[in-house]
Amino acid sequence: MREVFHQSLEDVQSRLVEIADLVVTAIDKATRAFAGSDVALAEEVITDDALIDEKAVALDELAIEILARQQPVARDLRIVVTALRVSASLERMGDMAEHIAQLSRYRFPERAIPKGLKSTFVKMGELDVAIARDLSTLLRTEDLRLADAIRNADDDVDELHARVFEKVLSDKWKGEAEATVDATLASRYHERFADHAVSVAKKVVYLATGDWTADTETIETVVAEQAAKD
Amino acid sequence: MREVFHQSLEDVQSRLVEIADLVVTAIDKATRAFAGSDVALAEEVITDDALIDEKAVALDELAIEILARQQPVARDLRIVVTALRVSASLERMGDMAEHIAQLSRYRFPERAIPKGLKSTFVKMGELDVAIARDLSTLLRTEDLRLADAIRNADDDVDELHARVFEKVLSDKWKGEAEATVDATLASRYHERFADHAVSVAKKVVYLATGDWTADTETIETVVAEQAAKD
Repeated sequence: MREVFHQSLEDVQSRLVEIADLVVTAIDKATRAFAGSDVALAEEVITDDALIDEKAVALDELAIEILARQQPVARDLRIVVTALRVSASLERMGDMAEHIAQLSRYRFPERAIPKGLKSTFVKMGELDVAIARDLSTLLRTEDLRLADAIRNADDDVDELHARVFEKVLSDKWKGEAEATVDATLASRYHERFADHAVSVAKKVVYLATGDWTADTETIETVVAEQAAKD
Repeated sequence: MREVFHQSLEDVQSRLVEIADLVVTAIDKATRAFAGSDVALAEEVITDDALIDEKAVALDELAIEILARQQPVARDLRIVVTALRVSASLERMGDMAEHIAQLSRYRFPERAIPKGLKSTFVKMGELDVAIARDLSTLLRTEDLRLADAIRNADDDVDELHARVFEKVLSDKWKGEAEATVDATLASRYHERFADHAVSVAKKVVYLATGDWTADTETIETVVAEQAAKD
């Protein structure tokens, strides 16, 4: 029985990492489709999002089954609760990637990135991909330094998000309404993607520290302990 | 011990309803602030959002504590798991209300609703408020007919959301970039608010039926059973 239990807990964690990896692929493809007006790549992201949704639902079912049958406590309980809470955010990250892909499809064969904003969106896209990669590694290793890295990258995304609005609302902006709508939505999707990653990272901190509202000091202590073990 | 247990389960449910009621107030004030450029009302929504966030975190802590100490099963377990999953969506609904309020504050003393879209946004706001009210009642009573009502109202919101984009992207649209940005974001926030409500409603269906992926038939059966009891 104990054997089976630990098997299913490992299953929970490996499924979380699997979904996170699907999200990495989705955001990587979506941002490349968006930058390069690659409609075939965009279609792939849109089709594959169903798989992320499916896997998130299946993970929830497994988590609830474990709670019902095995009544885990302490760290085991935290793993299951974290999985339940994280799966929803990963699923939303997949949705954001899908929305970005949809923008490139709508505008095809024209470019989806409005003039004058290409480098900003390319940078935002690269940050989102890096954030997703770090998140997958964080879920696999619980190396909390990655939670810090994700928070910092999210700050950079927020800055670029603000820059998009500055440009769009400046007197120099010559875009049509369509370009303005696209810039607004695309920027919001990129920014939300990063936000969800920060929210997942926080939950992994909870998993590692057992502290739901762990402050910076607690996290730094754990990071220091982790570093000492390396 | 059993006594204490049932006390805390009732506490979980009443806290969910309490948060839902705060969300009703938030969206009601936010949409009125948005339609009437009432910056004082907008400020209230922005300030009060912290309370929703706080109560959602406290509810999560309670739910996890119950899982750890009381190891609930069957319906009791479903109540606790539903609370964990629903609190995040309610918190996001509060955020959407806050974002709508922020739009009215940014544009003050000008009107936040772009010209030609007033009646559309007023209607969207009314639908969001009605959805929030139904959601609070659904959480209190588990009357699944309300889940249907919420889904239908969400369809109406989606239609209005599409209409906003039709208007903004039509040749007749004369709005500046600022009006286009505002319309895009405001419409998205109203639409997301309703989406989150649908997602909460689904989880209440799970709570009532025990079926995570309950189809329409299952729901109709439960609704019929509920109606027979009335």
